[in-house]
Amino acid sequence: MTEDATVTAGPSPHRHTFAPAKIAGKFQGKHIISVDQFAKDDLEILFDATKSIRKRSRQHDRGLTEIAAGRVMASLFYESSTRTDMSFQAAMRRLGGDVIAASNGVRFSSVYKGENLADTVRAAGCYADVIVLRHPQVGSSYEAAYFLDKLNQRIDKRTVVVSGGDGVGEHPTQALLDLFTIIDSKGALDHQSITLVGDLKNGRTVHSLSKLIAYYRPKGTRLNMVAPETLRMPESIIAMLTDLDVEIHETEALDDVLGESDVLYWTRIQEERFANKEAYDAIKDHFIMVPELLDQAPKNAVLMHPLPRKHEMGTVEDHEGLDADPRSIYFEQMENGMFVRMALLAKVLREAYV
Amino acid sequence: MTEDATVTAGPSPHRHTFAPAKIAGKFQGKHIISVDQFAKDDLEILFDATKSIRKRSRQHDRGLTEIAAGRVMASLFYESSTRTDMSFQAAMRRLGGDVIAASNGVRFSSVYKGENLADTVRAAGCYADVIVLRHPQVGSSYEAAYFLDKLNQRIDKRTVVVSGGDGVGEHPTQALLDLFTIIDSKGALDHQSITLVGDLKNGRTVHSLSKLIAYYRPKGTRLNMVAPETLRMPESIIAMLTDLDVEIHETEALDDVLGESDVLYWTRIQEERFANKEAYDAIKDHFIMVPELLDQAPKNAVLMHPLPRKHEMGTVEDHEGLDADPRSIYFEQMENGMFVRMALLAKVLREAYV
Amino acid sequence: MTEDATVTAGPSPHRHTFAPAKIAGKFQGKHIISVDQFAKDDLEILFDATKSIRKRSRQHDRGLTEIAAGRVMASLFYESSTRTDMSFQAAMRRLGGDVIAASNGVRFSSVYKGENLADTVRAAGCYADVIVLRHPQVGSSYEAAYFLDKLNQRIDKRTVVVSGGDGVGEHPTQALLDLFTIIDSKGALDHQSITLVGDLKNGRTVHSLSKLIAYYRPKGTRLNMVAPETLRMPESIIAMLTDLDVEIHETEALDDVLGESDVLYWTRIQEERFANKEAYDAIKDHFIMVPELLDQAPKNAVLMHPLPRKHEMGTVEDHEGLDADPRSIYFEQMENGMFVRMALLAKVLREAYV
Repeated sequence: MTEDATVTAGPSPHRHTFAPAKIAGKFQGKHIISVDQFAKDDLEILFDATKSIRKRSRQHDRGLTEIAAGRVMASLFYESSTRTDMSFQAAMRRLGGDVIAASNGVRFSSVYKGENLADTVRAAGCYADVIVLRHPQVGSSYEAAYFLDKLNQRIDKRTVVVSGGDGVGEHPTQALLDLFTIIDSKGALDHQSITLVGDLKNGRTVHSLSKLIAYYRPKGTRLNMVAPETLRMPESIIAMLTDLDVEIHETEALDDVLGESDVLYWTRIQEERFANKEAYDAIKDHFIMVPELLDQAPKNAVLMHPLPRKHEMGTVEDHEGLDADPRSIYFEQMENGMFVRMALLAKVLREAYV
Repeated sequence: MTEDATVTAGPSPHRHTFAPAKIAGKFQGKHIISVDQFAKDDLEILFDATKSIRKRSRQHDRGLTEIAAGRVMASLFYESSTRTDMSFQAAMRRLGGDVIAASNGVRFSSVYKGENLADTVRAAGCYADVIVLRHPQVGSSYEAAYFLDKLNQRIDKRTVVVSGGDGVGEHPTQALLDLFTIIDSKGALDHQSITLVGDLKNGRTVHSLSKLIAYYRPKGTRLNMVAPETLRMPESIIAMLTDLDVEIHETEALDDVLGESDVLYWTRIQEERFANKEAYDAIKDHFIMVPELLDQAPKNAVLMHPLPRKHEMGTVEDHEGLDADPRSIYFEQMENGMFVRMALLAKVLREAYV
Repeated sequence: MTEDATVTAGPSPHRHTFAPAKIAGKFQGKHIISVDQFAKDDLEILFDATKSIRKRSRQHDRGLTEIAAGRVMASLFYESSTRTDMSFQAAMRRLGGDVIAASNGVRFSSVYKGENLADTVRAAGCYADVIVLRHPQVGSSYEAAYFLDKLNQRIDKRTVVVSGGDGVGEHPTQALLDLFTIIDSKGALDHQSITLVGDLKNGRTVHSLSKLIAYYRPKGTRLNMVAPETLRMPESIIAMLTDLDVEIHETEALDDVLGESDVLYWTRIQEERFANKEAYDAIKDHFIMVPELLDQAPKNAVLMHPLPRKHEMGTVEDHEGLDADPRSIYFEQMENGMFVRMALLAKVLREAYV
């Protein structure tokens, strides 16, 4: 994930010792580092704010730029993620806020000089009101939150961290925008058949989305998990979903569930996860979405993808074919990402305004 | 031009299949990717707006910051160009707009993960109102325009691309600022003797400027083309200029035209274009501008250069000598670049305001 | 300090030929490149403005954003310094100004193409009102100031450079924020015992801070210089301090002065400065600040550090111990950096407003 060996240490111990506050109806001043902070009421508040902001944004409502006016967001991306990075920046800008970032990228600066994350985050915390952190180390956003809380005891200022993804750990805003897009496109989460496809063992996005679906406590919703035997969804997540009354259907064959899927959530399978090329070749055709495969999905299904996409959506020609299908909503999903992040930043910075 | 082999594929096929709309008096919502989009009327509209904006900017007219308020520009520079990059950013800022860019540079992000330009441009298109694209691949801005048009059919939003240069292909805003500077400094384009010096075969800026001069349909204007035999202006451009009644004078010897030049447009010759060092050494002295050479130009001539400059303007001491000559207007030319880009962004985003 | 050999030439000759203007009560339009520009009156003006801005900033006074509205700062960081970089950016943003920077970092752009600093600075000077320059070459900010003055004779615009540090040369805003923090935390500079610890021979920050203390002309103030014999404060600075009636006490043993120190200013000693590991090991324990050592300092002392910190403050556990001590004010010091830079930018851009 990164070329810089100095930042690829093991997971941060703070992942296990620091517990972020539950939202519980109040966003302002809270770090946003895990989907575990959200209950159904919180999601409904956030998604209502998202819809309102999207509508006002499309009307070029200049009042939006009052929400974060005078506030500063520091963008600390220790690994590149153009999409998440620009989405957060655009969100802050469209709320009238400002963005700062190291001119040469953060990879080449404090880290290069050997400073630890704790001190860099506190530097940013002195200058900014919110820090968006992307870091290859699992648990880094917990560590950032822990040290910002320490800083906030010393200086007259409350700075929060919003996770932009930490290694193979969590990426909560991706899960929030995914769930928002499902509900927004289907009208509700209840009674949907949602099919997750790809590497469900290692895929950060499908783990967080599954949890968030469960926290929303839908009625009559079924999660179809389509993955090779060796890349199945972890047992702990399956157990949690079952406990929260989400119906689970695990299979290796997309055909089992394609015809009944209301939502297709497509992700990547990486060849290097397999013991040998034969093992990969044996299953790969079930996991490449192409126009001919989408033709077999229901007429009112939607096709989602967290992007970026590569060979799991075939060739460049296949991309064009899929893009032309009205069921493909991954670009709308991406645009929703900006609106969800606008709502989240607005709530975290100035609750009352949205 | 770039160190990153992954982005230096052959020219994009969209260069030949996608035709950008002619301006034809209306800028708003149009991609700006080629000088071929401009006719004389369009240039006059743009240059009038440029002069107005320059005047207002120097008066610190705060009304300028209303023009792009609430609008976002994404800066996608796949290769570095500090001057063009900062000029566009400053232009957008001075119009009250916002700028987003990948914190670590775009070279290290989506491209590194293997995402194609089509998807990265559409991501930026979801977040921004205008994308400034610099890319080493010829035709990349055509490809960006093509896919943004596709995106614009899907989401409720019109995002345009403005080219910041694509490889050895086109760099339309450079040509626009060059032509503006000629007309602004000489009072008119008619009856000028304009001398282009350097590698006219491979020089992107001299090709685009020559075309734009022709599109302006000047009367009694002469283009002197000073280049080594092996680096002559391509025949196709010569033919086009001749068709549009621009007088052409090709020569290898600057002395032939120096004394009658109203405008000297200096560019670089690269040693590696020659078969051997002897061939280069034989001609190089004709193509290095130094104070002693400028002394031989007419008193009311102007010396232009697209910058950055290197040995084609001699040593650092030569630079200082040239800079001190009032005929050297390359810094004014550079500043005009920002004003032309302000006018262009203003017209493209909100036609009526300027 | 940098990986890029092309920018690590010898010191710029302009360091010796260009003399920046003294502040002498007037900041507007002046380059800020050396502590030598400041006399006591200037420091008092600046620090009063800093306190006012800090207070207004904490009250979220929106009037602050009028101060630099419509003005643009170019961030030219030829080497990384996340802290200084983000601090300046946040300062400009919180004054309502805008910031531009090369999207890929300046290291990969003009420098890579071989453009010299003089031309890059003038490009930025065409687009921006103030340039913050960080460059590994000693004297680079003098060179930038010299060429901006040349440019300012040609275009209708006054752009100033503010140094963000030049190699082992000067870093004036660091010294300004250090002195502000001492006076702010202790109530006055008179009658303080200030202990500087570390590599006093090569340390840029301790040189500049020492000079600035002298320029403030304190009464009854003592500077304790704690360094190994081979890393003593240069004789020229000692002589200057003595001339200006600052009492000096040089020692290799912290114990001599720890118990009487009102201010402890801690900096790093680098092992590679010593002839061999034995020489380093022999002294290093005197120069590592840990909680047990801080316990021996007076109850009302303050511990400062320019940050980033490494092993000179022990382990990560030691960091946490030190951070918990109310005498450790290095985070407040860092936050003050932003406020001092806000005051400085405000004074330089629009004197009357603060």
